[in-house]
Amino acid sequence: MADQRAQQMTEKDYMAEAMRLAKEAAKAGEVPVGAVIVKDGKIIGRGRNRREESNRSLSHAEIEAIEEANQNLGSWRLVDCELYVTLEPCPMCSGAILQARINRLVYGTKDPKAGAVDSLYQLLADPRLNHQVEVVSGVLADEASLLLKEFFLKLRSSKNKPE
Amino acid sequence: MADQRAQQMTEKDYMAEAMRLAKEAAKAGEVPVGAVIVKDGKIIGRGRNRREESNRSLSHAEIEAIEEANQNLGSWRLVDCELYVTLEPCPMCSGAILQARINRLVYGTKDPKAGAVDSLYQLLADPRLNHQVEVVSGVLADEASLLLKEFFLKLRSSKNKPE
Repeated sequence: MADQRAQQMTEKDYMAEAMRLAKEAAKAGEVPVGAVIVKDGKIIGRGRNRREESNRSLSHAEIEAIEEANQNLGSWRLVDCELYVTLEPCPMCSGAILQARINRLVYGTKDPKAGAVDSLYQLLADPRLNHQVEVVSGVLADEASLLLKEFFLKLRSSKNKPE
Repeated sequence: MADQRAQQMTEKDYMAEAMRLAKEAAKAGEVPVGAVIVKDGKIIGRGRNRREESNRSLSHAEIEAIEEANQNLGSWRLVDCELYVTLEPCPMCSGAILQARINRLVYGTKDPKAGAVDSLYQLLADPRLNHQVEVVSGVLADEASLLLKEFFLKLRSSKNKPE
């Protein structure tokens, strides 16, 4: 993507790319969550849930995106980076966002069962920890929520089918 | 290591192996933390802090050990596994322990600044999350604590040296 176009992208555009990755996860039979990392207007990391395919406990969308950004920057510090993700991060991914020193998080829909940014914990706002993160929520939230609901509905109905 | 010997190993023996890995980290200039994962008495994953060397935000000892165990078992579920680590896990690693469905955590010394098992949060005991973990602390705690203190003392004194 050309730099000029990248600079014109909005929050919704970045989240739309995360949604595209979430849909890719759904097609692969994975819980549909997608993420991108943005620095200076450019996407430097992409990830989607890949836990079943990779057999890796760590393979949430945010982790995969952080690892790609680490490689692209050659650093464990993702300073001045934003992370866009379709679902509120869990404790592991919230902790990884802190470890990576990401400045800003934009997420789609809340996760009342495991969300660690707003729902169950507010890990990114804890003044006792050595890093805090600016948080925006609700970007393309309905779309992200619908995709997850459809996925789990399909999963349940396929499990209830007679063998 | 032969199976017969493995079955005779105690908690202190497993933690001693984690301590050996922590010392390896210190020699490499990394914050000295080490971890092993044990299943049926056998060590199936080893890790040590490697963040500077790998340029990877995720490279804490626990994460590296979980990834090796994932590979060895060919599964993201580390069922019936124990994790031994020299320092109380941070939010990221505590969340990863939950994601990996590890049954039992044994750690050395507490981390009052970032510990998410006992010190700042009790993530592994939260009944709202879909997994809980049995926790034992204090095994070889003094040794782990001393290694960390020596490391940070040396780091500070080298930074204060005139150029």
